[in-house]
Amino acid sequence: MTILEIIEKKRDNKELTKEEIDFFVQGYTKGEISDYQASALIMAIYIQGMTKEETANLTLAMAHSGEVLDLSSFNKIIVDKHSTGGVGDKVSLILLPLVASLGVPVAKMSGRGLGFTGGTVDKLESIPGYKTNIDINKFVKNVENIGISMISQTLNLAPADKKIYALRDSISCVESIPLIASSIMSKKIASGAQKIVIDVTVGSGAFMKNLKDAEKLAKEMIEIGKLANRETVCILTNMNQPLGYSVGNLLEVKEAVFALKGRMKEDVKDVVLELGAYMLKLSNIEKDIKKAKESLIRNIENGKAYEKFIELVRSQGGDVSYLNDLENFEESRFIEPLYSKEAGYIYEINAKNIGKLACSLGAGRIRKEDKIDKTVGIVLEKKVGEYVAQEEILAYIHTNNSKDLEKAKKELKEIIKIRKEKVKPQDSIIKIIE
Amino acid sequence: MTILEIIEKKRDNKELTKEEIDFFVQGYTKGEISDYQASALIMAIYIQGMTKEETANLTLAMAHSGEVLDLSSFNKIIVDKHSTGGVGDKVSLILLPLVASLGVPVAKMSGRGLGFTGGTVDKLESIPGYKTNIDINKFVKNVENIGISMISQTLNLAPADKKIYALRDSISCVESIPLIASSIMSKKIASGAQKIVIDVTVGSGAFMKNLKDAEKLAKEMIEIGKLANRETVCILTNMNQPLGYSVGNLLEVKEAVFALKGRMKEDVKDVVLELGAYMLKLSNIEKDIKKAKESLIRNIENGKAYEKFIELVRSQGGDVSYLNDLENFEESRFIEPLYSKEAGYIYEINAKNIGKLACSLGAGRIRKEDKIDKTVGIVLEKKVGEYVAQEEILAYIHTNNSKDLEKAKKELKEIIKIRKEKVKPQDSIIKIIE
Repeated sequence: MTILEIIEKKRDNKELTKEEIDFFVQGYTKGEISDYQASALIMAIYIQGMTKEETANLTLAMAHSGEVLDLSSFNKIIVDKHSTGGVGDKVSLILLPLVASLGVPVAKMSGRGLGFTGGTVDKLESIPGYKTNIDINKFVKNVENIGISMISQTLNLAPADKKIYALRDSISCVESIPLIASSIMSKKIASGAQKIVIDVTVGSGAFMKNLKDAEKLAKEMIEIGKLANRETVCILTNMNQPLGYSVGNLLEVKEAVFALKGRMKEDVKDVVLELGAYMLKLSNIEKDIKKAKESLIRNIENGKAYEKFIELVRSQGGDVSYLNDLENFEESRFIEPLYSKEAGYIYEINAKNIGKLACSLGAGRIRKEDKIDKTVGIVLEKKVGEYVAQEEILAYIHTNNSKDLEKAKKELKEIIKIRKEKVKPQDSIIKIIE
Repeated sequence: MTILEIIEKKRDNKELTKEEIDFFVQGYTKGEISDYQASALIMAIYIQGMTKEETANLTLAMAHSGEVLDLSSFNKIIVDKHSTGGVGDKVSLILLPLVASLGVPVAKMSGRGLGFTGGTVDKLESIPGYKTNIDINKFVKNVENIGISMISQTLNLAPADKKIYALRDSISCVESIPLIASSIMSKKIASGAQKIVIDVTVGSGAFMKNLKDAEKLAKEMIEIGKLANRETVCILTNMNQPLGYSVGNLLEVKEAVFALKGRMKEDVKDVVLELGAYMLKLSNIEKDIKKAKESLIRNIENGKAYEKFIELVRSQGGDVSYLNDLENFEESRFIEPLYSKEAGYIYEINAKNIGKLACSLGAGRIRKEDKIDKTVGIVLEKKVGEYVAQEEILAYIHTNNSKDLEKAKKELKEIIKIRKEKVKPQDSIIKIIE
């Protein structure tokens, strides 16, 4: 077997065997196969596609290309949650303590934000003292002791995926369903997931811009899950407008704490309950979705979810006094309201543009090495479908740089679109694919 | 314009502009575009194909990526000849002195052999003293003074083509019609050709294995020629069996000298006359193909073609005494006949297998850095369609290594296939595409 034969096969649209895929993934990870050969193969895969079996084999090969977290000692089903990314997506911060409070073990490794989408690790680090890079034994111990730990990717998980992803990014091969699906699933499998609930975001602020592509990606991941013996459920959620009201690291932490204290915004609540119910179902804790949702609501109302969050933050070195009194948190120097020039109904708040605006204020990174400003961002006062009176506040801009303000206000005014006719609010849950 | 946008366009099967192709070829030649990005683009081109305009633009961009030989000072039409390669192909050695003797200026840069196909430069170097690497000014002077010079590629011609070809070879992207066509044509244009006659070999010993692919390649090159203002004619010739009787460097030189002295084998003659007639036609020396062939035959018979060859060899430092008496040439230590076990008609002599056998005896290179043995090779006594009696000689094996002999005889016996029924001789000229 040679890499030339493997490239030739995929070039000619033939199916690769498990052995051929392993040969490529192992050889490329070790550096025995060059970038330019991998590049040719990836382009051939992009254009010719992959069968379900090929995609599953690629996923498993990448998952086992580095360390694999073994969580079998828990004797509990490990259900992981993943989101394909969005703007204002603080779901993990709320959902994971919530399900942990109901007995779902949460051993979560998250990523940082890049481009216009945020990352859970950056948000957690907005809490003074919170350490996302704790040692892996401590991580496992925390899950054992309090049922939850949330960290950054400290292990060398799926190095093949990292290498292939970086290559794809530099050869215009990112938007390929089998490559995206295998990339996501390989990381989940390497981080010890036995069952997986995936929030597949759809819309302007998501990786998948339309329902058709999102369904394709979801089905591909479910198929990989089946072939890899990792039951997977995909919840397609709306990402045409930002999720919830705040966009920006610390601003989102605050919204999450509010939510855990019982004041959860409607769209965030829909997503949290749906994902949470399926996590409980896959964990065999509550098979009935309706009852599962009731349990989730109960643990918000009785404070157990919030208590679990406090436990989590404390166990990772975070200062919980900030959470108990959100006023303690640092704020940006300028908090500027944007008033509506007209009365009417909001009909569009493009999530990607909001994400880019927040990023330009300092909330996100353009390149990996950029530093972020955790205090800045956008807080919406209105969402799509809501009525706004003339001179009413549409949103607040949080920034540390006065000269950003005018430009940001101008841009934000263009992003939030208003019309006279009534507008139906957008559904948060688009579809569930099991 | 970025290389990412260019890759994306071709990935999505869109047509690249001249500017985009120039950007890629220049950037890659300078090393500003990485191998892995070029690799992704080449694979996308391989799979998605290229339009005629794209292929012509790629050709011109590669042709102008390095030095371009300017032969316009001759005030004569420069017609170049190219062959897509074969086994036993000594056509250039006969044809070029022949057309030069009729006034076609011959400024020919040839390549070395690689794999089972031979190269004109290796053959010329079998003549003691012949220098293929003379200085470019001397090359041009020789063409001016005696109308012919034949050298190796001393200029930095089409470096982009060299780089792209090497890359294609290492990513399974060799067999692509637009890439092959642009590679051939770019080198011809860079070496100063104004009109081009191409011998497109077809069959087991050729790059193009079947008529359909050969026609496609021919049409592609003619189209490039049109768009690049380099009139091109393609002669499709048979390469299922070796051309002529001898395969091996010095053995082929001898066959060529015999031919120039008037004893040309029928199949070689067909190819030489056809290519020669079109070279005379494109040169505006003789527009009528039939009359052109008569002129060519005349200059063989009256010795002018052979005289021109002597002039050529002398002007490049070769010792012409070897040509005047071929007995002077060194011979291999062993010259072993292969006898036929049966009587019948030859129906197959696979050219590729003969080429490989000659190569294994030392006549060719597996890798670029290999040394060749100029004396060794195969001399056929019979060709397809000829009758052979039992115990009659089929071929001679020329080798310097006695232990090669038995294996070579066994292989050769399997390559030369005989049957009882009559077999039609193969036509040398398959098709002419103008």
